[in-house]
Amino acid sequence: MAQTQIAAAVELLLQEAEELCIGGHITELNAVPSALEFSREFYAKNAPVVIRQAIAHWPAVQKWTPNYLQTTLEDKVVDVAVTPNGYADGLATQNGQEYFVLPMETEMQFSELLTHFDDPMGAVHYIQKQNSNFTEDFPELAGDILVDDLCFAQECFNKPSDAVNFWFGDERAITSMHKDPYENLYCVIAGHKDFILLPPHQLPCVPRRTYPTGIYKRTPCGKFYIEPLTYEDDTQQMTEWVSIDPLAPDLATYPEYAQARPLHVRVNAGDVLYLPNYWFHHVQQSHKCIAVNFWYDMEYDSRYCYYRMLEQLTTSGGELRC
Amino acid sequence: MAQTQIAAAVELLLQEAEELCIGGHITELNAVPSALEFSREFYAKNAPVVIRQAIAHWPAVQKWTPNYLQTTLEDKVVDVAVTPNGYADGLATQNGQEYFVLPMETEMQFSELLTHFDDPMGAVHYIQKQNSNFTEDFPELAGDILVDDLCFAQECFNKPSDAVNFWFGDERAITSMHKDPYENLYCVIAGHKDFILLPPHQLPCVPRRTYPTGIYKRTPCGKFYIEPLTYEDDTQQMTEWVSIDPLAPDLATYPEYAQARPLHVRVNAGDVLYLPNYWFHHVQQSHKCIAVNFWYDMEYDSRYCYYRMLEQLTTSGGELRC
Ligand SMILES: O=C(O)CCC(=O)C(=O)O
Ligand SMILES: O=C(O)CCC(=O)C(=O)O
Repeated sequence: MAQTQIAAAVELLLQEAEELCIGGHITELNAVPSALEFSREFYAKNAPVVIRQAIAHWPAVQKWTPNYLQTTLEDKVVDVAVTPNGYADGLATQNGQEYFVLPMETEMQFSELLTHFDDPMGAVHYIQKQNSNFTEDFPELAGDILVDDLCFAQECFNKPSDAVNFWFGDERAITSMHKDPYENLYCVIAGHKDFILLPPHQLPCVPRRTYPTGIYKRTPCGKFYIEPLTYEDDTQQMTEWVSIDPLAPDLATYPEYAQARPLHVRVNAGDVLYLPNYWFHHVQQSHKCIAVNFWYDMEYDSRYCYYRMLEQLTTSGGELRC
Repeated sequence: MAQTQIAAAVELLLQEAEELCIGGHITELNAVPSALEFSREFYAKNAPVVIRQAIAHWPAVQKWTPNYLQTTLEDKVVDVAVTPNGYADGLATQNGQEYFVLPMETEMQFSELLTHFDDPMGAVHYIQKQNSNFTEDFPELAGDILVDDLCFAQECFNKPSDAVNFWFGDERAITSMHKDPYENLYCVIAGHKDFILLPPHQLPCVPRRTYPTGIYKRTPCGKFYIEPLTYEDDTQQMTEWVSIDPLAPDLATYPEYAQARPLHVRVNAGDVLYLPNYWFHHVQQSHKCIAVNFWYDMEYDSRYCYYRMLEQLTTSGGELRC
């Protein structure tokens, strides 16, 4: 009876949202909105928007090619995430055991990174400087970003960005489905990114589980393997992660995903995507795509509390169900 | 098990909100915010705010006294809600049966209304022109309201008001706890209003039920009675209403209300209260208090869908429970 009631409540949530077209589309604008428009139409509604060519005039968009970066960064040492399959922060199986796997983090000269990009059979390399400060780490590039052009959103978030991240990667590098507690302004500088998005309220359609956490290592001859990560007391570290691959959803195992309504959007060089907090996102890219994104701490409001309730309703003892 | 899960989810919702202080206070401002500030701090968060003395300079606030209205409106015929106890749209019992009762609607000259206000033992009279257009009905008064001063909110709501309501009443007139699907700008012109507010996410603490609907009538000698309202096919009309009286909560019958955190705010002449959509409100007033309020259709977003889910979770077959 109560189980039926949970199912009915979840059904009502999904149905109301579908009927009201909430989380059902991504608005596209051809001009930057005012801060007030941005606040009331997108931020207040937790609704994504792509602003086409909003930053097309940035020196970065005009100048940054792999060649320019090569000349500018030369032998600068950069942090690179390396994986056998392109999934840094994703699921992988070893000896029949599924893990949530962190990438191998390597330092290398920028020019070396470029040679890896030109080897389509080698390991997959990705600069994905999450939680790092682009402005301080790349002073050679920082001036090419005109942050003030994002004031329509910054005046709305009304706080400094928590992180400015630099992304530069192989087309095989894929960011698996996840969500972040941030307001995200994602600026594509060169190439394009393909986002698959799911609104937070579709959580009941998104299968999740806790997985043992591992990290990629390589044997002396370069073969990748997963090393399980343990805490100091030797217990296995665990990470909750999304089980489904939106590129090839296994509906037999996860029938609840059939009710999900994934949105697809290509963000091109010069475009900005506003990705609101807690939206699930999966990201692919063109080869040597360059992007910079800005994260702003989200405000915790009643929508967040409702989300937590939904999470609790669709979780039981570590396992998740619809 | 699932019942426990519903209870745990509701508990988590209330607890997260309490810890994050969501819906836990009413901000007071001493100056009108910009439209952007209003949008990001209050509208986007569904958070109420009182702006002290925001409209103190309105001709209405300076001119409108009962005497001025008497002179200006004279023998104008107005719609008045009349009740024996002050509760228009509230619960009342007759012959052991509890009803949701509509007021008797009467037309009378404005000067007659004033004589009723001066009779503290008589029936309770209240002009409460809900869903009516103050601007068109009271052209004599409309010019004393400087609507443009509310542009900080109107630019945010970005639509014309759906209704402008005029309120003028006996201090015994009480508006019982309810919610509306509107953004509400409540402007007190003379006297004061005392609001008791509950945020929407506290719905599980608010006992509700469907009651037979009735309307007040009077016998030829003036005695009030409740006439049940039926549909054309003779079936009883029913209305869902809040069961609790926040002035004297019956916690023995409704223990769930003990977890409610009602907020109290007095809105004085010259103040504006922004009451966000779906907030429960209970309103009392000083004698001959005059107010004008503006309703704007709410935007239906994911917060609304979550609310509907919560409603479904805390309702079973017409009866409601925590
Ligand atoms: O660009 C990517 O690969 C991932 C971006 C992302 O996950 C983020 O900005 O939060
Ligand atoms: O002023 C009152 O008595 C009630 C006001 C009210 O319920 C409203 O403005 O929605």
